[in-house]
Amino acid sequence: MTDSTIPESTLLPLATQALLKGGLREPDAEAAARILVLGDLFGLRTHGISRIPQYLSRVPLGGINPKADITVTTPAPALALVDAANGIGPVAGMAGLDAALEGARHAGIGAALVRGSNHFGPIMPYAYIAAEQGFATIIASNATTTIAPWGGRGTRLGNNPIGLGVPDPAGNHVILDMALSVAARAKIRQHAARNEPIPPDWATDAEGRPTTDAAAALKGFLQPVGGHKGYGLAVLVDLFAGLLSGAAYLTHVKAWDKQPEIAQDLGHLFIALDCAKLGTPDWLRDRMADFSAIIHATPPADPARPVLLPGEREMALLRQQREHGIRVAAADLAKLHQLAQGETP
Amino acid sequence: MTDSTIPESTLLPLATQALLKGGLREPDAEAAARILVLGDLFGLRTHGISRIPQYLSRVPLGGINPKADITVTTPAPALALVDAANGIGPVAGMAGLDAALEGARHAGIGAALVRGSNHFGPIMPYAYIAAEQGFATIIASNATTTIAPWGGRGTRLGNNPIGLGVPDPAGNHVILDMALSVAARAKIRQHAARNEPIPPDWATDAEGRPTTDAAAALKGFLQPVGGHKGYGLAVLVDLFAGLLSGAAYLTHVKAWDKQPEIAQDLGHLFIALDCAKLGTPDWLRDRMADFSAIIHATPPADPARPVLLPGEREMALLRQQREHGIRVAAADLAKLHQLAQGETP
Repeated sequence: MTDSTIPESTLLPLATQALLKGGLREPDAEAAARILVLGDLFGLRTHGISRIPQYLSRVPLGGINPKADITVTTPAPALALVDAANGIGPVAGMAGLDAALEGARHAGIGAALVRGSNHFGPIMPYAYIAAEQGFATIIASNATTTIAPWGGRGTRLGNNPIGLGVPDPAGNHVILDMALSVAARAKIRQHAARNEPIPPDWATDAEGRPTTDAAAALKGFLQPVGGHKGYGLAVLVDLFAGLLSGAAYLTHVKAWDKQPEIAQDLGHLFIALDCAKLGTPDWLRDRMADFSAIIHATPPADPARPVLLPGEREMALLRQQREHGIRVAAADLAKLHQLAQGETP
Repeated sequence: MTDSTIPESTLLPLATQALLKGGLREPDAEAAARILVLGDLFGLRTHGISRIPQYLSRVPLGGINPKADITVTTPAPALALVDAANGIGPVAGMAGLDAALEGARHAGIGAALVRGSNHFGPIMPYAYIAAEQGFATIIASNATTTIAPWGGRGTRLGNNPIGLGVPDPAGNHVILDMALSVAARAKIRQHAARNEPIPPDWATDAEGRPTTDAAAALKGFLQPVGGHKGYGLAVLVDLFAGLLSGAAYLTHVKAWDKQPEIAQDLGHLFIALDCAKLGTPDWLRDRMADFSAIIHATPPADPARPVLLPGEREMALLRQQREHGIRVAAADLAKLHQLAQGETP
């Protein structure tokens, strides 16, 4: 696949414009573009601007409301319930993050449970935005069902991503963003598109047999990471993000690819913790530097591959791409230009 | 190993008495006994009353303070910092849980970060106590280092347990409690003693290479569950529970078995969410019943083994053992009687 390199200062307004043409209001288009361009800055290209055509293609079908009126209620001072009213996922996500941060500013910790949402992009951008303001986060979402329960045959659970972030006043935030399948479904889709085999532990076919055939895997089940432990975590993420939020959960979640015209009713969890309440910036900076030094001093199994912290590669790519431009697939960029010029998704 | 069966109503005062003789104050002894006996009720026998001799054996060495004055400060309305002052772990844990619940009662969500603590028993009892009062929880702790960072040679991380619980007003709470290594070190020791190979994903040798040789594995490192994803989660648990709490982290954590006379300075994270703020008990009960029904209706891979929810086996055992008595190792029970009669640990 051919790549293009484009400065953040060009990609951000271009993505915003594409979303505006798709029917979003300006602040919503800006919020969604920010999340997805951050995704590309982190190198998470399956969860970056490549998602915009997919999101917008559901608008004319009635599957997503680009002008959704998101409502936020606070049944308790640090707890927000966000009804995303079937809006674009990253807009709902930013509403959730903002509500959680607001609660944390007052109470030290804050939470937002989001319902009526859609695919909200990668978690890392939300955790990064919070970390830049000094907040640690726990963020999770349920998702279209792709995983079978441990010991079961039949998809009941999404790969339910979960992320945790801890801020470093020196800017070296540590952010974990992981789906609970061994591999993301988007990765399998890429392999299928390229007619390439997948590793045998990524997925099973529809009969529950391990497969290296990407196309067969797309008809089967993703394997949870770490067997029953990943299954357990996927269940608890769905309970927090889906069931407690008032959103759909398990098989109630609609598949955006199979039923693009129906609201997915995804749910998200945002928890933010105000680290300024824990100690001074110097205290936190020193501890983060020490933590990082201990991990980095671990002798590597392969001398060519030093030991890294979660998200460290992505944070380095963010800095590098902010300076030298963002690499995106040329086809994704071309599509974005078309959308920004008002072509139908 | 011979087992004994003992009613909860006998085991609880016996464990309390053993802890009192070990130097704890009465409310502390009761709190710790409650957590550990719940561990046995759930069938988590490695984290039940069998831990009492281990905890108390560190008291005469100066490694644990049985009369620690635990202090709780609240830098923000829903955020508590707990200094466990090197007290018995489950006493510190209950102080953390109580502080998090208190915050959540007022603000909808509450958190407590505990420092200066020790091994706090299993997570499931804390999540259960919270769930019985209608609170969902996220609970985690760091631990003695046994895991190498992903791609590294050298233990830097504990198997850092994390647990999540969601209450069901009908009593069928869903609770996940997992350590972040694939297998416990004790299991590898058992295999080595029997000269049996271990599965290739349990551990590496001292050079960081995966091994099926149990003896080589004991000289090496535990593997995190799910490879780099489990490593990432172990790092983030240590950052939240250890670094942010002001406790020790990574290699700063002292090993209770190798240096029993030195304070471990473990850290814990308790987050509680008041589900009463989200909807009525009927609303939650109905959704939990539906969620459970969907999971249970999954066709099992093995017809003899129906699909279960996280913690379901343990919740069933709790009910069964509350009625018919708790099975504990006869040797552990004998030791407990000795301690309760004032013998030195």
